[in-house]
This record gives sequence, C-alpha cells and structure tokens, in this order.
Amino acid sequence: MDTPVALLGGTGKLGPGLAMRLARAGVPVLIGSREAEKGVAAAGDINQKLRATGEDFTPVEGMDNAWAAARAHIAVITVPYEGQAAMLPALADSLHGKVVVSTAVPMRFEVGLGPVHIDVPEGSAAQQVAALLPESHVTAAFHSVSSAELKKLAQPLDGHVVVTGDDRKAKLETMSLVRLLPDVRPVDGGPLYCARYSEYLTVLLISVNGIYRTHAGVMLTNLPPDDAG
Amino acid sequence: MDTPVALLGGTGKLGPGLAMRLARAGVPVLIGSREAEKGVAAAGDINQKLRATGEDFTPVEGMDNAWAAARAHIAVITVPYEGQAAMLPALADSLHGKVVVSTAVPMRFEVGLGPVHIDVPEGSAAQQVAALLPESHVTAAFHSVSSAELKKLAQPLDGHVVVTGDDRKAKLETMSLVRLLPDVRPVDGGPLYCARYSEYLTVLLISVNGIYRTHAGVMLTNLPPDDAG
Repeated sequence: MDTPVALLGGTGKLGPGLAMRLARAGVPVLIGSREAEKGVAAAGDINQKLRATGEDFTPVEGMDNAWAAARAHIAVITVPYEGQAAMLPALADSLHGKVVVSTAVPMRFEVGLGPVHIDVPEGSAAQQVAALLPESHVTAAFHSVSSAELKKLAQPLDGHVVVTGDDRKAKLETMSLVRLLPDVRPVDGGPLYCARYSEYLTVLLISVNGIYRTHAGVMLTNLPPDDAG
Repeated sequence: MDTPVALLGGTGKLGPGLAMRLARAGVPVLIGSREAEKGVAAAGDINQKLRATGEDFTPVEGMDNAWAAARAHIAVITVPYEGQAAMLPALADSLHGKVVVSTAVPMRFEVGLGPVHIDVPEGSAAQQVAALLPESHVTAAFHSVSSAELKKLAQPLDGHVVVTGDDRKAKLETMSLVRLLPDVRPVDGGPLYCARYSEYLTVLLISVNGIYRTHAGVMLTNLPPDDAG
C-alpha cells in the first residue's frame, strides 16, 4: 500500500502504535492532530523510535487533521468516541468518497461493575461516524487490538481483527490494511450494523484484562484460510 | 464432577451435544423437557449415539424439567431466549440456592442485515434469568460454543468459553463445568452484567458464520495459563 493512510487524532492512544506498525510495512502514514505542531512532534517521536529499531520503515509525517484528511487515501479515526462528534463535521468535505475506518469503543468504567459500554444514539460509534460523514465509505476495524501490544514492535500481534462495513470495496480495502499488521488476520464481520458487536467485544476484553492483568486479543476458531481477497 | 447437571429444555439445539460431551466426561446428565416422555426419548437417543462411539460414558437420564431441576446440582438452561420466561417461574423453588447457567443468545434474523440481537429489558438473557430466579446463583456461559461442533464427538472443541456471574463460587463451579469439555478453556469475563457482551459476541460469530459458511468459535489471546481455580 503506497497511498497515504491518515490517522485522525493520531497522537492519542491507538495512533502511535498503529503508525509504527504501518510505517514498518511501508505505508506512508499521516499523523493528524488538532494542532499541526502536535502532529509534527508526534511524528518526530515515532520516527525516532522506528529509527532506533534498525529496521526499514517509511517515515511518518505530522500535520493537522484537516490536511491529513485532505491528503489521505484511507483515514482511520483514532480519537476516543467522545471526541469524534466534535472533530468529524469539519472534515466531511475532505473525506468525501474516501474510506474512513472507525476504531472507537464507546465505554466507561462504573464503580462495582468495571468497564461498561456507552449507548450510542446511532447504534454504535461506527454508525455515528457514518451519520457524520454521509459521503464517505465507513468501515469499522481494529477495536480489539491492544494499543499497548501494538507498540511492542518486536512482538507479532497474533490475532484477528473483525472488519464491518456496508460498502464492499471499502471493506476489502480495510481488510488489506489490517493484513499489513504482522500476523494479524482480518475477518469479515458483516454490515456496519454489526460494528456494535465488535465494539462490545472490546468492552468484554477490557473486563477480562482487569481480571487477568493482561492485554487480551481475540481469534476466531474454525475459519477457512484467509484468501487475501 | 459426580453431582447431576440438569439441561433444562435439553431436547433442543444445544442440549444433546452438551449432554454427550458431559456424559463422556463422567457427569450424570439429566435431560429435562416440558413433557417427561420427550426427555426420556431424547436421553435414549443420546445414549444410543454414545454407545455407538465405543467410548466410556455415564448414561444420561430423561425426565420433565421440574424433576430435572429438583434433582440437579447445577442447572443449565438450554431453551432459546424466547422460551425462558415461560419456563423458569415454575422451577424457581426447585432451583433455590443452586447454580443456574444461562446460555441463551437473544437474536433474530433481519432481512438485509442478517443476525441482529434482541433488546432484553433486563439487559441480557442472563440478567432476565436472574430476575426470574432471584434465589438462584445465576452465571452465563457456553454462548459461543457451536451446537453443531458439540455433536462432532470425534473432534475437540478447541476454544474459549467466557463465563460471567456475580457469585464467585457459582462462577468457579461453572468454570469447572466448562473445563470438562475437551480442549475448552473457561475465561472469567466479569460480573453478570457483562453476560450481554458474551451474548452479543455470539451474534457476531453467527454473522461471520453466514459469510464464511462455518461454525466459528472464539479464543482470547495473551491470557495467562488457566489455573483451574
């Protein structure tokens, strides 16, 4: 993949690890931030970490979200659910006709219960993105990938990523993006409606993480081989 | 485990496979049905299939749900979600103080979408069981185990079963029950509140099944070894 992938709000939790993994796979990554200076600083930090590994990579670039969205071929939203409704409307024109990947898991911690989901009026974070960006091809992916594990570059990720979406071509492009992460397999989970189940699954993983003190991921069993379709 | 496990509504989809697997592990299984004759017939059929394998097993017994509930040490509810509200109130006294395992996944198929969940007023099928059986120790498990795969006795199941519940002892007993299935590992998913995420996960698996024409199961990655707690 030699077309740019933008990480909108890429200076946060998921962005840096995802940027590093994709940069090592040769993808030109654009780190978008609310302020261009923050994006530039985060990109500098990421490139420095990548250089320290001694392995090949494509340097990442930092900029503001608007410019990242305008230059992107695919945009991945890496802000928490609470931030997306404020961020996306201004980017709708730049993202017109593009593949936009939702990764957010709407959740909070409740005393006595632990992690619980937040009800989203549109049904899921992904469907809210679709409502905010009606001219984009919205998919959902990467929910179950641990930000902490993503940053451990020496380790393969070794899990499955459920991808949902209503546009077939956008879903296939997202699945190709997932395949760039070492040892990660994309699994077609169905229409964007089903993104909620992938979001909820991550709440369950976070409950498990609290009990076992780990960063659990997920694999589906009994699947046919991935046809890289 | 030499104390009886009742499968309430055990003549349906999940019951026979679960009965066979547990019987092979030496568990005395009671197949409950609305009518005793149906329970007896199902048990006869199951025993015949088990005998045909040539392997050791503890014969299963058939009876009506009321008698199965009364004799059970642990009861597993194996009727679909739609049937539990009619079945359980009459069994509440017999199940007083006992471990009751919810397995139901409230779902339906919607044209153009595929499998979708059904909203449960109590939050999940498992929490509805807890509301209907306030004097029982309700846990939830087995959602993601394929009924079809359970019946393939020559094959290990090779997956994880997320167990949720509010009563620690009941949850540990349920996890021990799960360990009796060959190559299946129980994973503590948290309080009964989180049973919904295990139910939703199964809707996602059923969506995946439709796309890949399989019976997918689930494994979590990055867990510490099972301590058989």
